[in-house]
Amino acid sequence: MTAKEMVEEYDGASLFCPYTDLLEVLGKPHTLKIIYVLQQASPWRFTQIQQILHLQPKTLAARLQELLRLGLVTRKSYNEIPPRVDYELTQKGRDIRKIFDVFGAWSDKYPYGVLQKKSQR
Amino acid sequence: MTAKEMVEEYDGASLFCPYTDLLEVLGKPHTLKIIYVLQQASPWRFTQIQQILHLQPKTLAARLQELLRLGLVTRKSYNEIPPRVDYELTQKGRDIRKIFDVFGAWSDKYPYGVLQKKSQR
Repeated sequence: MTAKEMVEEYDGASLFCPYTDLLEVLGKPHTLKIIYVLQQASPWRFTQIQQILHLQPKTLAARLQELLRLGLVTRKSYNEIPPRVDYELTQKGRDIRKIFDVFGAWSDKYPYGVLQKKSQR
Repeated sequence: MTAKEMVEEYDGASLFCPYTDLLEVLGKPHTLKIIYVLQQASPWRFTQIQQILHLQPKTLAARLQELLRLGLVTRKSYNEIPPRVDYELTQKGRDIRKIFDVFGAWSDKYPYGVLQKKSQR
């Protein structure tokens, strides 16, 4: 099918319909990095994620809220002083981390990332 | 390694160092959808991508520029009237599309996406 036929027959949203919400959430700033960090250890406190990724609390809270909404992350708060809030990937969230295998294979194959010469593109 | 140890020993940027640029670019709004569309047919004209994804020209131009910079996409302009500009994924770009297999398997396993009950999380 050509691009022309696709534009005539499809609306973009219907194309990736089974995972539109997922693409939307993963496409928010920092979300991929947050998932990357969450799958490296467990559980994480809010402040630890904030520290390692140098994120503003407001930004991190918004991104975690989206991940919670999609069921990729769980949040547990403990009645301690100081208050403690832990975040972990759910199984649903862990099933997404296979994308990092794709990225890993990609960066092995193209090790210079963005710093390649134009002629190599 | 615990989250606490990771925060003490690592900076987030170094963790995903081989593909920091990639995560940065893929995490921009609409980029995942643009790649999804580009891998469905080839080549695409600028206006066709814009139409199928309902994007503002300015937004699409910015996203394509980032993908060009990372070598995931090529741009060819033809001296025609009206001017014609084609975009295609490079091999480097096509190697990323395996993430859609991960998303496909994920949405097969979790078919209700965001519309699940809280109790199922």
